Amino acid sequence: MPLRLSTADTGFAAAFYTLVNARREADADVSRDVAAIIGRVRDNGDAALHDYTLRFDRHDLEESGWEIPKAERVAALAGLDRDLRAALELAADRIATYHAAQKPEDRDHVDAAGVRLGARWRPVDAAGLYVPGGRAAYPSSVLMNALPARVAGVPRLTMVTPTPNGEVNPLVLAAAEIAGVDEIFRVGGAQAIAALAYGTGRIRAVDTIVGPGNAWVAEAKRQLYGVVGIDMVAGPSEILVVADGKNDPDWIAADLLSQAEHDPTSQSILLTDDAAFADAVAAAVEARLATLSTGVTARTSWEANGAIVLLRSLDEAAALSDRLAPEHLELAVEDPDAIFAAIRHAGSVFLGRHTPEAVGDYVAGPNHVLPTGRRARFASGLSVLDFMKRTSFIALDPASLAAIGPAAVALAEAEGLPAHAASIAVRL
Amino acid sequence: MPLRLSTADTGFAAAFYTLVNARREADADVSRDVAAIIGRVRDNGDAALHDYTLRFDRHDLEESGWEIPKAERVAALAGLDRDLRAALELAADRIATYHAAQKPEDRDHVDAAGVRLGARWRPVDAAGLYVPGGRAAYPSSVLMNALPARVAGVPRLTMVTPTPNGEVNPLVLAAAEIAGVDEIFRVGGAQAIAALAYGTGRIRAVDTIVGPGNAWVAEAKRQLYGVVGIDMVAGPSEILVVADGKNDPDWIAADLLSQAEHDPTSQSILLTDDAAFADAVAAAVEARLATLSTGVTARTSWEANGAIVLLRSLDEAAALSDRLAPEHLELAVEDPDAIFAAIRHAGSVFLGRHTPEAVGDYVAGPNHVLPTGRRARFASGLSVLDFMKRTSFIALDPASLAAIGPAAVALAEAEGLPAHAASIAVRL
Repeated sequence: MPLRLSTADTGFAAAFYTLVNARREADADVSRDVAAIIGRVRDNGDAALHDYTLRFDRHDLEESGWEIPKAERVAALAGLDRDLRAALELAADRIATYHAAQKPEDRDHVDAAGVRLGARWRPVDAAGLYVPGGRAAYPSSVLMNALPARVAGVPRLTMVTPTPNGEVNPLVLAAAEIAGVDEIFRVGGAQAIAALAYGTGRIRAVDTIVGPGNAWVAEAKRQLYGVVGIDMVAGPSEILVVADGKNDPDWIAADLLSQAEHDPTSQSILLTDDAAFADAVAAAVEARLATLSTGVTARTSWEANGAIVLLRSLDEAAALSDRLAPEHLELAVEDPDAIFAAIRHAGSVFLGRHTPEAVGDYVAGPNHVLPTGRRARFASGLSVLDFMKRTSFIALDPASLAAIGPAAVALAEAEGLPAHAASIAVRL
Repeated sequence: MPLRLSTADTGFAAAFYTLVNARREADADVSRDVAAIIGRVRDNGDAALHDYTLRFDRHDLEESGWEIPKAERVAALAGLDRDLRAALELAADRIATYHAAQKPEDRDHVDAAGVRLGARWRPVDAAGLYVPGGRAAYPSSVLMNALPARVAGVPRLTMVTPTPNGEVNPLVLAAAEIAGVDEIFRVGGAQAIAALAYGTGRIRAVDTIVGPGNAWVAEAKRQLYGVVGIDMVAGPSEILVVADGKNDPDWIAADLLSQAEHDPTSQSILLTDDAAFADAVAAAVEARLATLSTGVTARTSWEANGAIVLLRSLDEAAALSDRLAPEHLELAVEDPDAIFAAIRHAGSVFLGRHTPEAVGDYVAGPNHVLPTGRRARFASGLSVLDFMKRTSFIALDPASLAAIGPAAVALAEAEGLPAHAASIAVRL
């Protein structure tokens, strides 16, 4: 059974505090191993990649080939089931359209003091996309990570993916082809991240690395942050559903399970103001778990991390939700905008009874790479901005320098930086 | 003497590669110490802060006081020299005005498929501002870090600063008062960063931490990245000046020294197409160094890290500059916009002969917290966006769910996620 709480209980505050602060992230102590792998790839390049791939993925890159050739991607796309291809293309279109509106505008103007000021955005020269091998290799993830880079105008998009025993997932190759990935290397793990950050003989360095991965991949990104740009530190997935008693309990049960089936560390929480509805959802979850093919994972997640919180009123929902700052927030209520207006922290919000979170995972358009583990307090989902950077600029003429320069001279002198002051004063 | 290179030399490519990849950042191995400090502050809160402050800053917080009272800031501002106060207020006004235009716009629209899509920006609840003690305590830095948070609408801005032997810098307090800092605690080092990230009895946790610091502070921010948001990993400051022979060599010498005086690890590089001008600048640098009060630092920086590169043509400047991706790029040429148009990577650009970089440090308006060490390839200067986060949202009705839902079902099934598929299918 998942945790059951009620805001009317005297112990609620303490119990909810524990729920908010529970750490579900694996404390795998991989940082020393990862540092060693990074050092070896930086020093030995391709030879290190070859060795690690033989050891971890059990294939010899000289035989299986370092790159997955373009022809193999084209064939994977051509060989795709017609409906599946249409679904991938619809998803790609909608994702690209949503992200196109994120492109920032440049500024360039002259202010009242006669100072020309502005800012100019440019894409990074190259982006790296990590795609996990095996069970968690999702074509939707390829689209969500690659398309914002494409929309940003990144000239080169390099994908890396482990191919355990040499095997590749054709759906992932088809998605890479649709998304316009430029090259794909058969390497994974921390060694692939190091190769993208420093470059090797075969793999050119990139400027920004995105994409999900296991604890080694995540730690490699964290250690190389600053050498390259990275997307957010990602933790287990989570959903918070706020639902009144007028929902079909089976719909809400399905939504809770859609998150629980991801991983045993996933978290699904229901907030509702209707005790009978809470019981009905719990029963519907049990009924669905009985036949769900991902039921073992989903049950583990639901029983270990799930929670049903009974509210005295839906007015309590926004404040509790902000404490959790959930990755996904579903508002299955009569007037979702009223609650949404009071929400400060959430990765993505799903408004109303007909917006299951899973449409956002695939085809709605907004990115499904979202801040987890309360990071929506300060972080945003992946966007075009993660693949661009801003250069500010300033132009003065003698008159505008005369207008603002003396103040800068005064401040430089007060800070004990005489050469700063001189560089202005000499021109006045 | 600084390094002298010429693009006409046969060994240029290799020598420039070495210059680009030279690491000037201290390899201080502080990560274990910092991890221990963070752990102690997380576990013991104020008691740990008290102990570390006694040990490192040599004062007892119970006697000197944990907080610097509001009255002390007000008094510092009131006691300021009139011209200096006017200079700080001019700077604050111009910085706030420039940053106000960075505030992002929300989106909310219904697309052709009937899907409502949008994104909403909100400030973080609280931001932490680290201000170093001692020599590097700059009021301009307080303005540049605090004002973007204020413009973003951050409700609480908490400053931490070490006060070695209990002493504080009144200029810093005055700047904090002008910038609207809400509270200031007398703690510094990695322990202050940990306190801001986790919260203690006296210091409430914040969501994002910005501001410069020593190797311990920088490492603490790196280790806590993900627990809180942080600004960029910062390295030594640097300037690249592109100048033709029509400049006054003394002006350009002053600009090179304005960067060199910051720190022995700072870097100043001149690119010019005029050999006689290069010699004249080198001579002018020597002349200025002879009397500069920060001359010891500036000479160390200039001789160890400085460089003069002779170009065959100014047409070579943009490509070489992009290799360095400089923090500050000065274009002291007849037509700076022509070179600027070809630049892809730079933190901030200073256009023309009358725009010394130092005006950007104080009063121009754009932020002076900029990516260093080639990070302008992927990172931007500090902005209002660093204190805000975006929540995407989606709303479907039965018709729009029917339009895009089946594609999501197909993709979920192909990815082996049946509960994802069911959460949509059950509503169709």
